[in-house]
Amino acid sequence: MTFDSNPLFGKLTLIGIGLIGSAIAHASRRAGLAAHIACYDRSAEVLETVRRLGYADSTHAELAGAVREADLVILCTPVGSFGELAREMAPHLKNGAIVSDVGGVKAAVVRDVGPHVPEGVHFVPAHPIAGTEQSGPEAGFAELFDGRWCILTPPPGTDAAALETMKDFWHRCGSDVEIMDPRHHDLALAVTSHVPHLIAYNIVGTADDLETVTEGEVIKYSAGGFRDFTRIAASDPTMWRDIFLNNREAVLEVLARFTEDLSLLQRAIRWGDGDTLFNLFTRTRAIRRGIVSAGQDSAEPNFGRNRPKPGEKK
Amino acid sequence: MTFDSNPLFGKLTLIGIGLIGSAIAHASRRAGLAAHIACYDRSAEVLETVRRLGYADSTHAELAGAVREADLVILCTPVGSFGELAREMAPHLKNGAIVSDVGGVKAAVVRDVGPHVPEGVHFVPAHPIAGTEQSGPEAGFAELFDGRWCILTPPPGTDAAALETMKDFWHRCGSDVEIMDPRHHDLALAVTSHVPHLIAYNIVGTADDLETVTEGEVIKYSAGGFRDFTRIAASDPTMWRDIFLNNREAVLEVLARFTEDLSLLQRAIRWGDGDTLFNLFTRTRAIRRGIVSAGQDSAEPNFGRNRPKPGEKK
Repeated sequence: MTFDSNPLFGKLTLIGIGLIGSAIAHASRRAGLAAHIACYDRSAEVLETVRRLGYADSTHAELAGAVREADLVILCTPVGSFGELAREMAPHLKNGAIVSDVGGVKAAVVRDVGPHVPEGVHFVPAHPIAGTEQSGPEAGFAELFDGRWCILTPPPGTDAAALETMKDFWHRCGSDVEIMDPRHHDLALAVTSHVPHLIAYNIVGTADDLETVTEGEVIKYSAGGFRDFTRIAASDPTMWRDIFLNNREAVLEVLARFTEDLSLLQRAIRWGDGDTLFNLFTRTRAIRRGIVSAGQDSAEPNFGRNRPKPGEKK
Repeated sequence: MTFDSNPLFGKLTLIGIGLIGSAIAHASRRAGLAAHIACYDRSAEVLETVRRLGYADSTHAELAGAVREADLVILCTPVGSFGELAREMAPHLKNGAIVSDVGGVKAAVVRDVGPHVPEGVHFVPAHPIAGTEQSGPEAGFAELFDGRWCILTPPPGTDAAALETMKDFWHRCGSDVEIMDPRHHDLALAVTSHVPHLIAYNIVGTADDLETVTEGEVIKYSAGGFRDFTRIAASDPTMWRDIFLNNREAVLEVLARFTEDLSLLQRAIRWGDGDTLFNLFTRTRAIRRGIVSAGQDSAEPNFGRNRPKPGEKK
């Protein structure tokens, strides 16, 4: 990949340095997107780690100083904190600045942040569809967004130049960019991310609670499929709590469909209806092929887990 | 790994050459476990592939010839076919031979195969907890069973020497071995494999059926979590149909618990009960840690998907 070396921003401020905040810092450095990267976090320990890893030009325990003179401010904390952060930083934003975020829900972000954005500041909500199950300031890496989609949900009347700048920013972080209505985003992500996470958390909880199968057995025989769910169910608890609390309608709608469909399978198993099972199991293979050929997942068996790791002898 | 070069068996016959059948052939060759590996499949195309790949010493379209003089016969077809295969091959088994299988359910296998096993032949049911989402005679590889568990469920009165031989066989294929009651196996695997597969198939079906989110969107934004489920939901349809039809009670029992637990989460989302969500999401991280430290999954983020593939430039 080649990158334009002309920085898009003088000062980029990241609010909350976890997996996504640190990945944006790395990706911005890789592509030279900002002359100065400022990192704010309320945790002194996180800031110490950021300084040790050296991907920030300045670290801040105080919000006002972090956002002062920033050209782009990105909220990277759990979405439940956005309203209060936006209110607190608003008086310190410079005229012409862009405020964005990486929240996994978008209608609630428009609702919570929008009213606090001052006249003359541009608000361009964003959601990069990328991540790992790991959290914290050491978890990010520059390649996280490569080949993944970033969805922007600009409110009506968003400044065209600010929108273009944010498209450019995410392209140069390695992503493809899509513009979408926030409500449609929330429904699409309920299907492709929120409900899958909920059922992964749920099956891991169910397995943990069973009295008849021990935790040791669950762990030993997890390669039968269960281990895949535990990866997703190891994601950040606060981030995911906030997503479910802030995308209630879409999650409940998709969940109702999921439960309805599951009842059909339950009934097919109870009555020995093999055709219903076989037909579904055949149909689902096509979607996998679509995802692999769109470059959204590895074509290798077991996600390439059976490949030797770097430095490991086969 | 080092292997004993003394073959355990003169002739090993594999019945049904898909992912597991071909993996056993490769693992047996790697460890020198059989002087002769015979592969039976009802499909001429599969046998042609086996010959091209060269991991069999003989290929067979006829069951009688395949099992004749075999010291170990392993059923590697979908479990729904076991009863008929056992009945058909019984008259051709030699005295002292061992009959085993790799079926994902065990009580039904004991029920279906047991009655056909002739006097003087030893029946040792087995289930290697290993696999990928791929199928067919090209899908197997020698390392598939390395570090995974293989569960043996010998019926009461099983010959002790035959049981020891099968433990030895699976150890030398790279596995750890556990002895278990078939009913307990079926319950444990309902939790760690069968219900996870069912809900993966189900969520992929639900996503495919939604009118409000397009298939293109589901594919594009699948990196939000959904893509993991599509890997599991790409597993072999016939094999999985047979597993659900043959582990009805345990699957319905675990599924009832799953649905009950999911209702609690649904209610928590509806009423904005963040604590219930947060508490579950925190608890599930511990099981992930257990699985990684037991060596049953990769510690790398995203299963190591972000690692460059062999021969790929970073």
